[in-house]
Amino acid sequence: MSSPEPSPGFVSLVSAGPGDPELLTLKAARRLAEAEVVLFDDLASGPVLDHAAARAELIAVGKRAGRPSARQDAVNRLIVDHARQGRRVVRLKSGDSGIFGRLEEELTALVEAGIPFEIIPGVTSASAAAAAAGMPLTRRLTARRVQFVTGADVTGHLPEDVNWAALADPHATTAVFMGQRSFPKLVTGLLAHGMSPDTPALFAEAIGHPQQRLVHTTIAELARAMETAEVVQPGLILYGPLAGHPGPDPALPLP
Amino acid sequence: MSSPEPSPGFVSLVSAGPGDPELLTLKAARRLAEAEVVLFDDLASGPVLDHAAARAELIAVGKRAGRPSARQDAVNRLIVDHARQGRRVVRLKSGDSGIFGRLEEELTALVEAGIPFEIIPGVTSASAAAAAAGMPLTRRLTARRVQFVTGADVTGHLPEDVNWAALADPHATTAVFMGQRSFPKLVTGLLAHGMSPDTPALFAEAIGHPQQRLVHTTIAELARAMETAEVVQPGLILYGPLAGHPGPDPALPLP
Repeated sequence: MSSPEPSPGFVSLVSAGPGDPELLTLKAARRLAEAEVVLFDDLASGPVLDHAAARAELIAVGKRAGRPSARQDAVNRLIVDHARQGRRVVRLKSGDSGIFGRLEEELTALVEAGIPFEIIPGVTSASAAAAAAGMPLTRRLTARRVQFVTGADVTGHLPEDVNWAALADPHATTAVFMGQRSFPKLVTGLLAHGMSPDTPALFAEAIGHPQQRLVHTTIAELARAMETAEVVQPGLILYGPLAGHPGPDPALPLP
Repeated sequence: MSSPEPSPGFVSLVSAGPGDPELLTLKAARRLAEAEVVLFDDLASGPVLDHAAARAELIAVGKRAGRPSARQDAVNRLIVDHARQGRRVVRLKSGDSGIFGRLEEELTALVEAGIPFEIIPGVTSASAAAAAAGMPLTRRLTARRVQFVTGADVTGHLPEDVNWAALADPHATTAVFMGQRSFPKLVTGLLAHGMSPDTPALFAEAIGHPQQRLVHTTIAELARAMETAEVVQPGLILYGPLAGHPGPDPALPLP
């Protein structure tokens, strides 16, 4: 199956957006329709895949629970093998593939194998969560910097060498991806570095899905809730001066 | 024209994406097709507007060269006035409207006027520039934080109270929006705060347009080029360890 061909295929690394299938880009929808093979994560599945042609082979490569490095190697191999058969491959990744999407490993495999590719950017879940809550991510004077960090490093924990001056900045909006487990530890550090416990925070679950839930709170309250909860749903955390923005009623129906 | 109506219209604050009309979301395209009035900036014009219905009224409200606050008030008034006539209004903003899109002012005007609205997020030009250059914005271990800042505050200059610890962090990817004028001053600060002059930098002009140009360089070289150039084109600056990523040939044609 992996015998090299003289004319390699083409791989589109496609961002699926934050969950709402309507937040797919026109280009991503077109590449899905043109694809002969679609390799997708669990997170990027569902209605987005309806854009693929009936003849396309759809392959789930979700690696949520697995051993990351072994699984990533297997995904890289699959992408390269299918492309070497001269096929048009779409590798679908949730959110914007360039932001905590582990894009680097797949890019390196493609470059090493000499397979032509493109990256199609998408809407990051941080933008979608803010939009759903009716808040911008930046504001003149009060929130002039926006930053995205992950709450889980390779080991699944908060990285050791956090840049506290960056993260405890009261004039920035911070989005924490995969942060629900380590948020109490993060907040301990933020408070130790001078951030107010009353800094507004937003916890966004299932962004763009019918079950979407937005909780407006503070960093201290959210850390406490997460520490005492038996189960914490995965979600995106936004904190900073704008996270307390009133915004529209999220349940507001279209006229 | 501005007499209040008992049933207000509806305003969609729509992100137009980074320039490539195919990076519009499906939802944005649908809202444009449904709109009775579209208010657009210069930057968000062009092929994106082709999604609007023939019957839709298209109004340019570009405020590039004008006095910002007076013009913004006028834009707010236009949006509110059209909505009060019971119309479906699309306010089209380039990139992701929540990121340096001055969304806050328009949101406030809508909340004050009691007009229902929604925000439709989009692809930010930082994601699009990185994708065009074949680089991710984050990478495990080496670039675990990504941040977006603006090089121009209300006065058009670099803000006075820059968080240097955040911006001179060698383990972050930084995107500087509207930074071409103040970049030499920014780099002077970065170097004074310990950042290497050889930190990779990418200057991305006309992202997603046929004239797109990507220049891979270093922060020191880019600052020097901008200081000595007679005219500096507007563009997005990305710097950090990933900005030197080899990436695919941007001119690589699709098979």
